[in-house]
Formats: sequence, structure tokens, C-alpha cells
Amino acid sequence: MIKVGIVGGSGYTGGELLRLLSTHPEARVVCVTSRKLAGKPVEAVHEHLRALYDLKFEAPAAQEVAQRCDIVFTAVPHGTAMDWVPALLDAGTKVIDLSSDYRLPVDVFEKTYGMKHKAPRQAVFGLPELHPEVASARLVGNPGCYPTGATLALAPLAAAGMVDRVVFDSKSGISGAGVEPTETSHYPNLAQNIRCYKVTSHRHVPEIKQELGKLQSDIRISFTPHVIAAVRGILTTAHVFVKPGFESKIQDKAGMEEMYRQFYAKSRFVRMTGTVPMLMNVRGSNFCDIGLEPEKGTDRLVVISAIDNLVKGAAGQAIQNMNIMMGIDETAGLWFPGGAP
Amino acid sequence: MIKVGIVGGSGYTGGELLRLLSTHPEARVVCVTSRKLAGKPVEAVHEHLRALYDLKFEAPAAQEVAQRCDIVFTAVPHGTAMDWVPALLDAGTKVIDLSSDYRLPVDVFEKTYGMKHKAPRQAVFGLPELHPEVASARLVGNPGCYPTGATLALAPLAAAGMVDRVVFDSKSGISGAGVEPTETSHYPNLAQNIRCYKVTSHRHVPEIKQELGKLQSDIRISFTPHVIAAVRGILTTAHVFVKPGFESKIQDKAGMEEMYRQFYAKSRFVRMTGTVPMLMNVRGSNFCDIGLEPEKGTDRLVVISAIDNLVKGAAGQAIQNMNIMMGIDETAGLWFPGGAP
Amino acid sequence: MIKVGIVGGSGYTGGELLRLLSTHPEARVVCVTSRKLAGKPVEAVHEHLRALYDLKFEAPAAQEVAQRCDIVFTAVPHGTAMDWVPALLDAGTKVIDLSSDYRLPVDVFEKTYGMKHKAPRQAVFGLPELHPEVASARLVGNPGCYPTGATLALAPLAAAGMVDRVVFDSKSGISGAGVEPTETSHYPNLAQNIRCYKVTSHRHVPEIKQELGKLQSDIRISFTPHVIAAVRGILTTAHVFVKPGFESKIQDKAGMEEMYRQFYAKSRFVRMTGTVPMLMNVRGSNFCDIGLEPEKGTDRLVVISAIDNLVKGAAGQAIQNMNIMMGIDETAGLWFPGGAP
Amino acid sequence: MIKVGIVGGSGYTGGELLRLLSTHPEARVVCVTSRKLAGKPVEAVHEHLRALYDLKFEAPAAQEVAQRCDIVFTAVPHGTAMDWVPALLDAGTKVIDLSSDYRLPVDVFEKTYGMKHKAPRQAVFGLPELHPEVASARLVGNPGCYPTGATLALAPLAAAGMVDRVVFDSKSGISGAGVEPTETSHYPNLAQNIRCYKVTSHRHVPEIKQELGKLQSDIRISFTPHVIAAVRGILTTAHVFVKPGFESKIQDKAGMEEMYRQFYAKSRFVRMTGTVPMLMNVRGSNFCDIGLEPEKGTDRLVVISAIDNLVKGAAGQAIQNMNIMMGIDETAGLWFPGGAP
Repeated sequence: MIKVGIVGGSGYTGGELLRLLSTHPEARVVCVTSRKLAGKPVEAVHEHLRALYDLKFEAPAAQEVAQRCDIVFTAVPHGTAMDWVPALLDAGTKVIDLSSDYRLPVDVFEKTYGMKHKAPRQAVFGLPELHPEVASARLVGNPGCYPTGATLALAPLAAAGMVDRVVFDSKSGISGAGVEPTETSHYPNLAQNIRCYKVTSHRHVPEIKQELGKLQSDIRISFTPHVIAAVRGILTTAHVFVKPGFESKIQDKAGMEEMYRQFYAKSRFVRMTGTVPMLMNVRGSNFCDIGLEPEKGTDRLVVISAIDNLVKGAAGQAIQNMNIMMGIDETAGLWFPGGAP
Repeated sequence: MIKVGIVGGSGYTGGELLRLLSTHPEARVVCVTSRKLAGKPVEAVHEHLRALYDLKFEAPAAQEVAQRCDIVFTAVPHGTAMDWVPALLDAGTKVIDLSSDYRLPVDVFEKTYGMKHKAPRQAVFGLPELHPEVASARLVGNPGCYPTGATLALAPLAAAGMVDRVVFDSKSGISGAGVEPTETSHYPNLAQNIRCYKVTSHRHVPEIKQELGKLQSDIRISFTPHVIAAVRGILTTAHVFVKPGFESKIQDKAGMEEMYRQFYAKSRFVRMTGTVPMLMNVRGSNFCDIGLEPEKGTDRLVVISAIDNLVKGAAGQAIQNMNIMMGIDETAGLWFPGGAP
Repeated sequence: MIKVGIVGGSGYTGGELLRLLSTHPEARVVCVTSRKLAGKPVEAVHEHLRALYDLKFEAPAAQEVAQRCDIVFTAVPHGTAMDWVPALLDAGTKVIDLSSDYRLPVDVFEKTYGMKHKAPRQAVFGLPELHPEVASARLVGNPGCYPTGATLALAPLAAAGMVDRVVFDSKSGISGAGVEPTETSHYPNLAQNIRCYKVTSHRHVPEIKQELGKLQSDIRISFTPHVIAAVRGILTTAHVFVKPGFESKIQDKAGMEEMYRQFYAKSRFVRMTGTVPMLMNVRGSNFCDIGLEPEKGTDRLVVISAIDNLVKGAAGQAIQNMNIMMGIDETAGLWFPGGAP
Repeated sequence: MIKVGIVGGSGYTGGELLRLLSTHPEARVVCVTSRKLAGKPVEAVHEHLRALYDLKFEAPAAQEVAQRCDIVFTAVPHGTAMDWVPALLDAGTKVIDLSSDYRLPVDVFEKTYGMKHKAPRQAVFGLPELHPEVASARLVGNPGCYPTGATLALAPLAAAGMVDRVVFDSKSGISGAGVEPTETSHYPNLAQNIRCYKVTSHRHVPEIKQELGKLQSDIRISFTPHVIAAVRGILTTAHVFVKPGFESKIQDKAGMEEMYRQFYAKSRFVRMTGTVPMLMNVRGSNFCDIGLEPEKGTDRLVVISAIDNLVKGAAGQAIQNMNIMMGIDETAGLWFPGGAP
């Protein structure tokens, strides 16, 4: 049984790790930290977990956490993760960081987040569909939610060098903004509404450019996020304009789908739907559903991906990475469907 | 043209007064106050009002407000209204207070709200369907949202002395909780959810008991509120158990509806629907829709009322009171339908 | 491995059985029927199940289903189940019927549903918390969703003979109304709305009266259902008026909770929350959360229960029954938390 | 008083015309038709209009409608409007058609809608911000909802010849799909979801191309619609790539906003927000809110528009056209704010 620690267990990501790990056949959470909730049972804040755990929040030092655990998830804000990760690694445990501290090169991180990086370390970008080297990593930087949906939607096209330009128009549930009430998450401001925000400057753009840029260096990427009246999920509508010469190729919808299927032949969590993907079909699950549609007679192909931002976009993907890092089946504890309707 | 002042214009009630008064044919807002927003245009916080007003928030003293206005709405929290109302009255203006400071006898107020009343004044309870004396009032205590829906649903039965016991099970939109983000108003905590709160001890109970008790002294009242996944509206399901002797009377549904129609014959904002009322049909409007259904062969009659908590439950009713106090048609500026769908 | 059949797999209940059984460690769906979808893969209609099943809808006769399966769930409309159940039983399989055909005595069924019962059979009412005889049943009539939430909320009080009168005011998600689009399920008619329906005459009342009446013969029961803007879940607000002599007993909140805890000591799916239960904490799970609150100084106790109508209110409870009937752990395949947020 | 007729009053568009006209100071609905509802009062289907109208649905011939009315709105499906419009015009009344029958040249219409046009007539495209010739029109083809939001968002840029390519990614409330329940409008399929549909082939594209093409002939247009979990509203996110030479010009956000303000100086229903527009601020109103944001250092400008699809996108715009055609103030009956929160 893999002994798991969660640093920062009071937020949505920590709660989702607890939810998913409560039924994992080969892992058990032995330690969950929260400074402000130390001493309280996990159900004090995650009421849905009542009866599933007999576990209290603690506030131990990094070294103690490392000693008690085979692997540790850090689910704390960016800037804070870097306070934990080196100590955990140095004490001998493996780490999966769900913040943005270990996803980007230091210079890009510092420019994007406007802060000094206190403790850079070698890390693997934890999108296992593109990064088999997760298997031997000691530190994984778990991808952002938007980059997961956007990158998986475009990777096959980028790998084929087909993309001239892509506009990602993404629609996210509000849980991505966290557990703290804000003006944006205030029910009257979100119900029956949709909010476009950080219109041209979201911090996840460098991750998307990094990952797709590795596959096709001259790809041009635009990204605009929206928050929709939903708790979970990210639907990414990728408007792709292909390079000259590929216009007729994309007109063959079945052929394009087949190209995607082959690219993802070994990726069990990517499902080509044949139809337009929807959040309701991935809600609560680790799947990334992908569909596509060419525009008749033009250079535009629309690719649509749907994920649950808290699962494939965060905690589920982190557990998928854990499975791979610990040498067990990638799908262990994650092979269940979404909760439609 | 009636010159109107609004003390406390930054919240939902203040915003709704501004929305409704923007199209009132005989009234004009000449002053809206907010200490924290002084100097900013109303659309800085009420973006939906852009282009409708050329008005800035101010922070004048009560006397100045009174001098510039024929009538003033106080839309500040309970406990704060009592700081404004006496000064406004003494300076010669009429006042409609939308807080709870002037709805109850002092002793009941103090017990219910756990605070000393600093400035009691004579006031009329502003439910115009039951209180024609609003016409000559200088100070009106505008009713709470729950009491409006509950009292209108039961008044005809209580006036006929028919009620043994009533359980009000009310369901409110979240706007009643105000503009400030809280854990309850946090979208993930309300969407797809319903929250029963202050299960047996809501502060609006004394208002309901006061108003129905005037009509039938021995009525027994229970009240439990819920917040539903909606912005606006209160649906009140009143489970009425009638006194012995009335069991067969309530079985005549058409007769009961006729009794209600007669009771509300002059109340233009009360609509007997004949069907089960729904929030969607009163949303944004000043109507109170009422329907009823007897349980076959028992002593139970279910009466259902639907209002928009921000309109008939607050700002609309306040304007209705203003119309009556100023001697113009009760429906002026309020005679429009709800916004279904 | 238990071989499971599902008769009627195209609706929400059938889909939920498939969802839950896809991860059951000791059961496997070997046959799912649908006349209109015969030949199509399950994901053709349950898109969220893509990749979880390699199974097609079939249209076999009852005897064939029985021969291939150890146990069969009938998830067809009332009136249709009675066409299947006897043939299945006679062919030697066990049956759990999720319709209302085998929950009530024949005379009560016929009066309630306005139809002749074509094939009455001995059946156990499948609320395992109250009916241990499920263990030896060959036919279980799985309870309705409202009766599950209402009965579990009141059983301890009724068993103690404490109830004078109870008003169940229930609020259900729309999935209980099924997969077919109707005026009620039309999004503009439900979002931001709440609909009280069958105000005093819902067909589930006889089940509630039957079950609670077994525990306390003189209990008086009222029931009014609402549909809320939610997909899943039933919140039941039970307004209980206790018999004379019990007024002071109910004032002891902790004592009342302890009484409930003892009553449900062996019921692993009933959780006493200590707080007010909410749908979000049981969503997608088989738990029934219960909380309570006395009204100070009166004879009223409010008990609130929350279930997922498709799980504890239908498919989950059916699987719980299956586990018990097949002699395996009651919680097998069902021991996971709800999907908050 | 302008005498108004509505042909096809049972759907959302007809209902919205009735809602808006109920408070119009210079117009009165004298006739509303519906074959299936003839003889029933308008509140039989539009319950929110109870008490506002004393009017029954009728089923008169076109000539009779024309004789009784100064102007007629046809709010029937495309293909049916062409059965009414010529007869109405020939009988001497003015007509505003809310279907798609009179928005496009005949050949484009026939190709787009796959049907023969039975009765082409000269018509003005009823987007009054771009078509002052509405004033003298006898027949106006009222624009589609998506084209209204998209065209207003881009017109200033197109008029300046600045656009290389634009991708309109639009998000609409479900009311645009009409009053009939469908699988798409089924609450469990829309709540907490978002649905991309007719991904590259929506029928409104030709209208958008027609209108923007008049302003800039070489503009390249892509359009993809989504349905969001909302009843009302269309948010259009326009990703604009400008022609070489305009990259630096768009970097001046204030300058771009000023350019828009000047373009719409006389358009009272277009509001430049300075912030990101949201549906909640236009809900129920005739406003089109527009905001914009350049991407730093690139050729991309994001322009966002928000309208209420039933008002500015249908009935409100139709009334605006009526006002202009009848020579009264464009804003008559329409000068009120949206219903936030």
C-alpha cells in the first residue's frame, strides 16, 4: 500500500485528492496538512467525506511528512509550494506539485508570476500522455487545468506540424478559482451569466506555448478564458487554422479522427467521441473527451476537448502521475465514469 | 415630480430602488448616498444602470438629504437605519425604512436582534394590502421579504379565523443575503444545492406572528427558510391545518379561491393564479401570485405564494408605499410584468 | 462474480445502475435490454460510459435474461415491470424491481396507480435499513425516491411512538422525472425557479404511510413535493409535531441525535451530520445524511434528510439490496463519497 | 396610439413582444394570433402577463389583421412568415418579420435554409445602428440574435477596413432555441454544462457575412456557437486579427474604445463599458454592451459584446424598428435597465 501525504488539504484540490484516494486500491492517505485546521477531522471542511476517513488535519514539518509518506502531493498556492518541495525531496520522498511552481523554466515562471523563484528543482511536466518520463521522475509539476485541455486538444495536429494559428476559447467551471468566496464566485454574479476574464493575458498561456511549442516550434497560439455557470469542467473550443497545403486533409473528418485515435492509442483517458464533447460526460472523472469538425471548404478545423478541471485538470491527473511514478497501472483508482446526468 | 433620496445605495436593495425608479413616471432620484463610493457614478457598482442615470454617490448629512428630497428610502443594515431615520423625519421629509428597525415594537425588536433600539419612532408596517394607514404615515417600516410572502398567503384564512396551525416552508433566492460574497453565496455551495438554515429561529418570525396575529389571535405559526439555487424570488409553501369545523369548507377549492379573490379585490398586485404559482412568473415584478390546493378529505390546505424578494419583498413594495404616501396611484412605475422566461 | 442483468437500460435509472456497477468489485453486467436501442452500444445513449463497457443493448425474452443472470434489475416504467418480473422469477433468477409495481399491497397499488395489477408476487420492501429480510428475498420492490428520504428521516421517532403529526416538504432534483424532455424539465422553466407539484396527492404517499405506519400506527402524515433547479438529490424537510409529553425530550438536541445514531448504528449509509444536511454532500453517493433541530419551547422538531435520488433513492439502494441478497458486504461497490463541490 | 398586431404570439418571441409592449407609452397590442390557442387569454400560456392584458389569442386572416393594425410583427417560424408577409403588406400595413425569411437575398436564403422562397419582397435589414433606411421601410427583416451581437461587435473595425480575420465564439442562452422542450433544453443536459453545436455551419453565418461584408468586402469570418446554462443572453467573444499595419493601432485600448464610441455616438442602445461586458448587465434590456482588450504585442484584439437574445436579439430590436418606422423616439418603451442581479 502506497503511503500518501497531502500538503494543503483544505482547498478544492486537496479535497479532490482525498475524494479520489478514498477508493484507490493501492494507496492510502496517511497524512494531510493544514495549518489553520490542524486537529480537526477532514469532514469538518469536506463534509462529503464523512465516514470515509478517520483522519485529522495536522501541521507537521516537511521532513516528518516525507518520512511518513512514499509520495507527497503539494496542493498549496504557487509561491508556497516552493517552500515545501525541496525539503520533501531532500528527505527522500517523491513529490507531485499541483501548484504552478514547477511547470515552467525559472525565467518564464518569474516573469509570469511576478515573483522570485526561491528553490528551483528539476521537474517533469506531468501530462503523462505526452511525457512518459514521468515514470522515472522524483518531482512532477502537475499541469494547469487550461493547459491540460488545450494541449491534449492540439497535440496531434502540432506533432504533425499542421497548425498555422490556433485560438483557444476556453470555458471553465468556477471551482478552478478555489474555495474562497469572491465577487466572481458570488452566486448572483455567475448564475445565468458567463464572464470573460484575463482576456488576453492568462498565466496559463506560457504552459500551453511550452508544451505545444515542443511539438511544433512555429505554432501561433491565442488563448482567452471564460468562467461559466458550472462548478466543474473545462470545455476548450480550439479554432485551428492549418498551414497552406493541409486544407484538404482536414476536410476528411473521419481521417482526422483516426489520426487522433492513433496518436492517443495508448492513452486510456483520452476518448475520441465522434460527437461534440460535453462537460456532463466527463464530470467527476479523469477522462479527456475530444471531438472535431472541419469547416467546409476552408482552412479551419475546430477541435473541442472536455475535462473535469478538478480531476484530469488537477487531482486526477496528479494521481495518474502517482500511479506511473510508483510503477502501478496508470488507471488504478481512476477507472470510473463521470457522473451524468 | 417627487424628489427621492436613497440612503445606502450600494447594495442590492439600493440598486433595485434605482432600477425601478429609473422608469417611474412621477419620481426622480436626486440623491443616493454611500460613504465608501462617494464621488463615483452609480454605474461603477450597478453596471446594469449605465446610461440610465447621470448621478454620483454622495455622503451628505441626514439633514441635507431631507432638505433636497420629498421622501427618503433608507436601505442600510438594521441598527444603522436608526441612526438616520429620526434625523430625516425631524428635518421634515417622509421616510420608508427597508431595514428591520421600524417593523416591530421596541421590546420585540430588541429581543429579536439582540441590540438596544437607539431611536424608536411611530411607524406603520408597510404591507399596503393590510395597512391602508400607510397613506397618512410619515414613517413606514417596509416589511421583510419572508413576512411579505407568508402574510399575504395566509391573511384571508387568518381574517376568517380558520387556522389552527400553519407551517411556512419558504424557499428564497440568494439575493436576500446581500451583495457581499459569503460561504453560502459561493457558487459551488449553492448551485445544484438547497440549504435549510436558521431552521427554527429566523428573525422574520416575529413579523409574521405580529401581522397574522392581528388577524387571528390564536393562530399557531411555524417557519423554516431555505436558500435555493436562484437569485431572485421567494416561494412560500404554507401547510395550513384548519380548526375543527372548517374541514369541509376547505375542500371547495373554487370557493376558497373566491374567498381569496374577494379579500384581495382592491389589491392590484395580488394575483390569484388558479394554478401553482412559480417564481418565474413574478421575477422582476411587484406581483404576489397565490394559489391553493386542499388535501382530499383532511384538514390540510396548502397555500403557495410567489414573490420577487427584491421587488414585492423589498424595493418594489417600498415604492408602492411611496406612491400611496405621496397620494399617487399605487401602481405608478410598478405596473409591468415579470421577465419570464 | 455476480452476473447481473438490467431490463430497461436506456433511462436514468438504468444508466445509473450501469455507472455504479462499472466499478463493482464482485458484480458484472452481462445483459442490458432496450427494445428501441437493441444493437447499439451502451455509450450511444450513456455517453459518459464510453470506454467503461464493451456491451450492446439487447432485446431478449425474460427467460433468456434469467438464464444468463444471477440477479436482474427491472428498470422499466410501472405497469411494465409486472410483465417481466414473474417470468424472471419463474425462470429462477432473483429480481430487484425499481418500478412501483412491487412496493405496495395490490389493492393500494391499484388505487394509487389507477390500473389493474396483472401479476402480484410476494416481495420485500427494499429499504434495507428497516428490512433485514431483504437478505432472504427473491423479489425486492425497491422504494421510491421520496419514501426513502422521508422514511429514513422519521423512522427513529416513529419507532419511539413520538410523532403526532409530520409534514414532509420535499425538494427534488429533476432527474427523478426521467430522461424524456417535458415542459417541466425544459431549462427555462426550471432554472432560477422551483415548482410545487401534485401538491397534496403524490403517488409516493402510500409508501411513506405504509413504512412509517408499521413503526407507529397512529402517525399522521402530510407530504408535498417540489422540483428544484438541480439534477440530482432530494432534500426532505420534515416538520414534526410530537405527541404531548415529548415536548421537553425533543429540546435536547444532542440527545435526539444520539437516539438517531443508536437507531442507525448498523446502517452504514446513514450519516448523522450534526449540521444541516445538504445535497452537495451526498451527490452521486449512496449516503443518506440526516440532521435535526428542535424549535425552542414548542412541540416542533425539524428533521432534514438528504439523498441522491438516483443513488440511495434508486440505483444505489438497488445495488445495496443486491449485495445483501447475494450475501456479500452491503457496501460493496458503493463505498465512495459524493462529488462535492 | 399605434395599433399593433402580433402574428404568432405563443412562443418566446411573441411573449417577449407582449411583455415589452405592455408598458409601451405609444403602442397597444390589439391583436395577437395563434391557431392552436385561439380563444384563450394570453396569460393561459404567458402566465407572467396575468393582469397586464385583457386580450385573447385569435386566428384571423392576414387581411383582417392588417386592417385592424398600423403595424404587424410576424413571430412565426421561417418558411411560415412568407405565407403572411405579402398579404399583410398588400393590405396596407407595415410589417416587421422576426423570422429569417426577409433578411437575406433570395438565393442565399434558399441555399441556407434548404427551401424555396415562395414570396420574396423588398425588405430592409433591421439593425437600426447600421441601417437608418429602416425609417422609411414598409417591411423590415429583423436580424437574427447571433448576427446582432456579432455585427455590432465588429462594425467599427470593419468600417475602418482593419480586419484580416475574425473568429466569433458565441455563447447563447437556451431561450433562443424556443419554447418547445428538446433534448438540448432538457434541464439535466444543460445545467452545469455547455454545448457547442453546428460547430462550423450555423445558419446565421450568411447574415453576419452580409452585414460585415458591406462594411469591409475582404473580411474573413469564422463563427462557432455554444449553448450555455442560461435562459437569456448572448455573449460574443470576437477574436480579431487585424491587417498588417494596424498592429500598433490596436494596442491603444483607450483609442480603440474612443473609435467605437464615435462610431456609435448616435446609437443609444450601444454602451461601451470600459470593462468586460456580461450578460447580467443587459438581461431583459435592449442594450448591447461592448468592451475590448488588445493582446500585448500581437495582431489580436478581442472584442466582446453582450445582448439579451430575446430583446436586442429579437423582440426589443423589433420594437426599436417599429419606433423608427412610425416616426417616434427610437427608445420609446425600451428605455429601462436590465434586471441585475
